[in-house]
Amino acid sequence: MSNLVIVSADCHAGAQPETYREYLPAKLREPYDEWWAALEAEMAARRGTFFDQDAQEKRDSDESVLAGGINGEWDAEVRLRELEADGIVGEVIFPQMAPFGGGLLQYRTEIDPAQNLEGNRAYNRWLADLCNANPGRHAGVALITVEDIEVAIHDVEEAQKNGLWGGVLIPSGTGDNPYYHDPRYEPLWDACEALQMPIHTHSGWSPDYGDGPAATAMFISEVSWYAHRPFTCFVWAGVFERHPNLKLVMTEQGCTWILETLRQFERYYSQPYFKYFHKDLSMRPSEYFERQCYIGASFLNPEDCQDRHKIGVDKIMWGSDYPHLEGTWPDTRPSLQATFGEVSEAETRAMLGGNAAEVFGFDAEVLAQAAERVGPKLGDIVKAA
Amino acid sequence: MSNLVIVSADCHAGAQPETYREYLPAKLREPYDEWWAALEAEMAARRGTFFDQDAQEKRDSDESVLAGGINGEWDAEVRLRELEADGIVGEVIFPQMAPFGGGLLQYRTEIDPAQNLEGNRAYNRWLADLCNANPGRHAGVALITVEDIEVAIHDVEEAQKNGLWGGVLIPSGTGDNPYYHDPRYEPLWDACEALQMPIHTHSGWSPDYGDGPAATAMFISEVSWYAHRPFTCFVWAGVFERHPNLKLVMTEQGCTWILETLRQFERYYSQPYFKYFHKDLSMRPSEYFERQCYIGASFLNPEDCQDRHKIGVDKIMWGSDYPHLEGTWPDTRPSLQATFGEVSEAETRAMLGGNAAEVFGFDAEVLAQAAERVGPKLGDIVKAA
Repeated sequence: MSNLVIVSADCHAGAQPETYREYLPAKLREPYDEWWAALEAEMAARRGTFFDQDAQEKRDSDESVLAGGINGEWDAEVRLRELEADGIVGEVIFPQMAPFGGGLLQYRTEIDPAQNLEGNRAYNRWLADLCNANPGRHAGVALITVEDIEVAIHDVEEAQKNGLWGGVLIPSGTGDNPYYHDPRYEPLWDACEALQMPIHTHSGWSPDYGDGPAATAMFISEVSWYAHRPFTCFVWAGVFERHPNLKLVMTEQGCTWILETLRQFERYYSQPYFKYFHKDLSMRPSEYFERQCYIGASFLNPEDCQDRHKIGVDKIMWGSDYPHLEGTWPDTRPSLQATFGEVSEAETRAMLGGNAAEVFGFDAEVLAQAAERVGPKLGDIVKAA
Repeated sequence: MSNLVIVSADCHAGAQPETYREYLPAKLREPYDEWWAALEAEMAARRGTFFDQDAQEKRDSDESVLAGGINGEWDAEVRLRELEADGIVGEVIFPQMAPFGGGLLQYRTEIDPAQNLEGNRAYNRWLADLCNANPGRHAGVALITVEDIEVAIHDVEEAQKNGLWGGVLIPSGTGDNPYYHDPRYEPLWDACEALQMPIHTHSGWSPDYGDGPAATAMFISEVSWYAHRPFTCFVWAGVFERHPNLKLVMTEQGCTWILETLRQFERYYSQPYFKYFHKDLSMRPSEYFERQCYIGASFLNPEDCQDRHKIGVDKIMWGSDYPHLEGTWPDTRPSLQATFGEVSEAETRAMLGGNAAEVFGFDAEVLAQAAERVGPKLGDIVKAA
């Protein structure tokens, strides 16, 4: 019986600060140094508050960090070694923070649009180099800005051409720009559909809750909601309707929320007065979800896994969140045993890798060969096997 | 067997535009006229778009409106007549829009803080007069601004003194002011607890979705979430912990969302890393909900009613949303039959009036006497009776 082919649908990568300099246009290197110095000063000033969540302290003391495994955040060789040691043969890569503040928190604070754009481009070029170091193993996700949709389309094309075939992250907040129900985004959806680039949302953006005692709990409780919002736009603004081949992947924002959301949307859809608001939709909200959506279920927990049939086994893609310390790395196996121990082989294979391989178009042969070397045996994870 | 004592936990009232002039300080009457003229012009310009949801057109043609029953929005005599014709003997009154844009949509658009404050005070004084016209029947809810917490406390005291004993509506958006997890609000929570004034959140506030084709569907899908947010603050910022006698009432924002919310919060609470973020809490999130929260379940639908045991029958308070046309007025009975037809007498009595009477401290004798005149017989609503 072949080993498990595990693809992590949620990992992260980011260069070391100085590395981005080479990827930025020369004229932006000095502004970048200034931006970085200011950010470092702010992080130092807010240390121990919500802002850094004591992350630096944790990093300074964590065994995995001390052992160097976390350097896979920017080092392709270390990265592949750590993934494989964890039994993972392929991954989808989301950002940390791009130069000038793009990435998961983009538009949280005021950000110069021109610098944001070039910062994201620098990140995309850097990430493409990282991904291309181990062909077929890293599905990198490209960053865009949304001030100018033609520019965003150009950047999607460019990123794909350079080797980012994992899709496009749309910022969960859009700053002063309209939100995603606005028709201005239509050409972007056209392009992503035509290029077969999935659209991603990933939790991270939220309002700034300040540094008070409840700030972190507020962030954790609310951050996922902001990442859910584009789904609502895609349903009601007819994005799914007009782009039946566009995929929306919603990552690290829980699983079970979609059940309550669909329950509500189905009810709206059925109400007489609501028909004026969705007159161009030929399908129900849950049908669009079924046809076009996927959930990046970072370290899927056993309780959420119990709802897999309600959500759809083919909708769920497990993720390790490497190299984030709240993820399963470097001890992924026990976490997998806890979640998948009682799950059937077919369902386990689908959620642990099969679904992601299909959604992102991984080369099955490349993954299978790696899995024969490093993948866990089915019986290592699934008790029933 | 006594008639059903029905209290609507969700009704609305607002004066006619010119009426507010008398309630405003003299120096603000001219600015008020200008504000109103500008709003009317904007409404005219955006007619047929999301902004007015064709509400005016509906009002111009609706039978109930043509018959004058909707004038109970500002006319105490008509109001009581319409409520009683609907079988309702008591109510909780939320605002429409107060002068200068306060009320449900407060802080959605830029609003002059001083004018906002005086506009809310004018509304509160007007509403107190309306409520005092039929003693014991109308639990009016006071409006506040949140720029200055001492001022807010003063306004709560003043409103209660004038006859608004239904509690205090906190705006779902706080504009440029910190949100409700911030310690600055502590004296306000102190005051509301001491005065036994429940805190209310009511759906209405949202970002402006513009006038595009999906705007209304976006509003309907997201507006409730913004009204849920204070609950999150009250849990994690320890507001419930430090104010065990403070009540939070969450109205016209659905029911079943609380189950998924509590499920998530309980999970956060249980996670090892989360203990740093709630170190001052002695109870679990669901225990605070059970002790201090209530749901204003406007026109509770049969599907939500099926979840009443999970939510807690003593947590649910039915509402008609009078005089809003999306509510059950003027045909409340069939709606009650659909929802409560298979529910036990005790549960029906609790959700239709008993819970609200207790939460807001209605005079049971006053309600009972009115119910003997106008309340439905139990068998009119509940099949099993």
